[in-house]
Amino acid sequence: MRNPSTAMGAGDDAAVIDVGSKYMLFSSDMLLEGINFDLVYFPLKHLGYKAVVIGINDILAMNGIPEQLTVCIGVSAKLSVEDLDELYAGIRSACEDYDIDLVGGDTTASVNGLAISISVVGSVDKDKIVYRKGAKTNDIVCITGDLGAAYMGLHLLEREKRAFAGNNSPQPQFGGYEYLLRRQLKPTAPIDVIMSLREAGVVPTSMIDLSDGLASDMLQICHSSGCGVRLYMERIPIARETHQMAEELHADPVVAALNGGDDHELLFTVPVTLQSKIAGIGGIDIIGHITPASTGAKLIAPDGGEISLTAPGFHHEATE
Amino acid sequence: MRNPSTAMGAGDDAAVIDVGSKYMLFSSDMLLEGINFDLVYFPLKHLGYKAVVIGINDILAMNGIPEQLTVCIGVSAKLSVEDLDELYAGIRSACEDYDIDLVGGDTTASVNGLAISISVVGSVDKDKIVYRKGAKTNDIVCITGDLGAAYMGLHLLEREKRAFAGNNSPQPQFGGYEYLLRRQLKPTAPIDVIMSLREAGVVPTSMIDLSDGLASDMLQICHSSGCGVRLYMERIPIARETHQMAEELHADPVVAALNGGDDHELLFTVPVTLQSKIAGIGGIDIIGHITPASTGAKLIAPDGGEISLTAPGFHHEATE
Repeated sequence: MRNPSTAMGAGDDAAVIDVGSKYMLFSSDMLLEGINFDLVYFPLKHLGYKAVVIGINDILAMNGIPEQLTVCIGVSAKLSVEDLDELYAGIRSACEDYDIDLVGGDTTASVNGLAISISVVGSVDKDKIVYRKGAKTNDIVCITGDLGAAYMGLHLLEREKRAFAGNNSPQPQFGGYEYLLRRQLKPTAPIDVIMSLREAGVVPTSMIDLSDGLASDMLQICHSSGCGVRLYMERIPIARETHQMAEELHADPVVAALNGGDDHELLFTVPVTLQSKIAGIGGIDIIGHITPASTGAKLIAPDGGEISLTAPGFHHEATE
Repeated sequence: MRNPSTAMGAGDDAAVIDVGSKYMLFSSDMLLEGINFDLVYFPLKHLGYKAVVIGINDILAMNGIPEQLTVCIGVSAKLSVEDLDELYAGIRSACEDYDIDLVGGDTTASVNGLAISISVVGSVDKDKIVYRKGAKTNDIVCITGDLGAAYMGLHLLEREKRAFAGNNSPQPQFGGYEYLLRRQLKPTAPIDVIMSLREAGVVPTSMIDLSDGLASDMLQICHSSGCGVRLYMERIPIARETHQMAEELHADPVVAALNGGDDHELLFTVPVTLQSKIAGIGGIDIIGHITPASTGAKLIAPDGGEISLTAPGFHHEATE
């Protein structure tokens, strides 16, 4: 690193900048039409909100509080001024909900669909920063929210898009699955959990934003921390609607939780001695514990069988 | 503003974050294929370099030093792995030249052409920060580099692209115009001027990154500072090659300097008492002086005639 203020560069959820009294956190994401979202079913207001949530979760995952945000938007001619207003309304709504100042960025024309780039700056006390690398043997593995619902929501939206295109069903069939749609279209950032951990005096030993699916993100922590893990399948929080939708699609809800992604929750570890404090905070599930690297990263089935945790696209296998 | 650390949000070249001992500066830009660049003639390595220059100039324009940078890239399938390597080589080369740490961002697929988003963080001592708003009557107006060359370079590239498409000329005719091409394809950031001003103990009263053309950017300073200006046409630095190319195209080189844009130089004001210090620093031209708002923003022709400074797209007329 060329600048002494660069405490840590790439390789975690956000970069860490030493400003003397505390650490600043800095992270950027880009969302592109046709890759990260489909405007056929993604309302622009929700898209703006979700872009902010994705951005600030990188700061939360370092145990920081997001404070400032820039948004750059490339807008194609097919979007009207009102469409753009909707997008910004969603961005502003998220900034209000999470107490963030929108401090810059710009809007330019695009010949090629909508492009959104979000950069977020936040801060954290130096003794409270959490990296991916601090998990220790016997730490408990904790998770906020439930998993797989956003992925099932995406499947549902894609199914209705196909049905609509074939004119089989002029009205989309979403009844009973509002929760799945909400998890896909309007995720919220688990900032309240970060606040509750602070109040309880708990500093996690490691943490990561759950965006690629539990398997991949857990393996990231194992790789960075040089540890193994045992996750208990029946403890993974999966919503009733996710189970229901999985049944309808003849899919496995655990696979959706492990590899679906887009959950935007937090996965973290804390010393086992703090288990009762964690139990006292709502919205956190304990799904396993950290083991030595030599025992590998394992998923434990209800019958006690062990499955090695793998993730498509994750190339650093946990050291075994 | 919701966060006390937000010293200034949107409205200048970069946002200002109060971190106690100093100010952090934070700015983001997005460049889109087909809008901001044309890959037919823009080498990817140069594009990566230019993207960094555009990003860090926003920090320089606040009298700050850029320190950290994130880059998000959306890559379409038509680009090879080698192409992407070239782009990153340009980004890394600029980071080396300007002592910046590349600390994050990501590369994602794009269905719609290349998209580049650059966010830069820098810092400045609190008593040295420069906004657009501090110009005072009688301050001298200073400029780095020369103007209009990048715009002429763009015209040259577009002309050769058309000629090539019509097969009139299999080899592009760039002879003698290498300077114009360099100003368009590989601009440099005037960081040495910022360093020289620091060494000379000069803190400008106002400053802006010259990206939209002298007219528009000068009007921005007048609007923010509540002042007028007199710019002397014959003092505007215009390179010999720019004059030559303008003649060839039957265009006015002063118009290219005023409205061409893409110069990536700095426009700033300093008290007239510091004029000799400015003269001692190389690469700076004095092109006019600040007047009361009541006298308007004027361009003075060599014959003494006054022309009101206007810019397409600039909606805040200087108060008259």
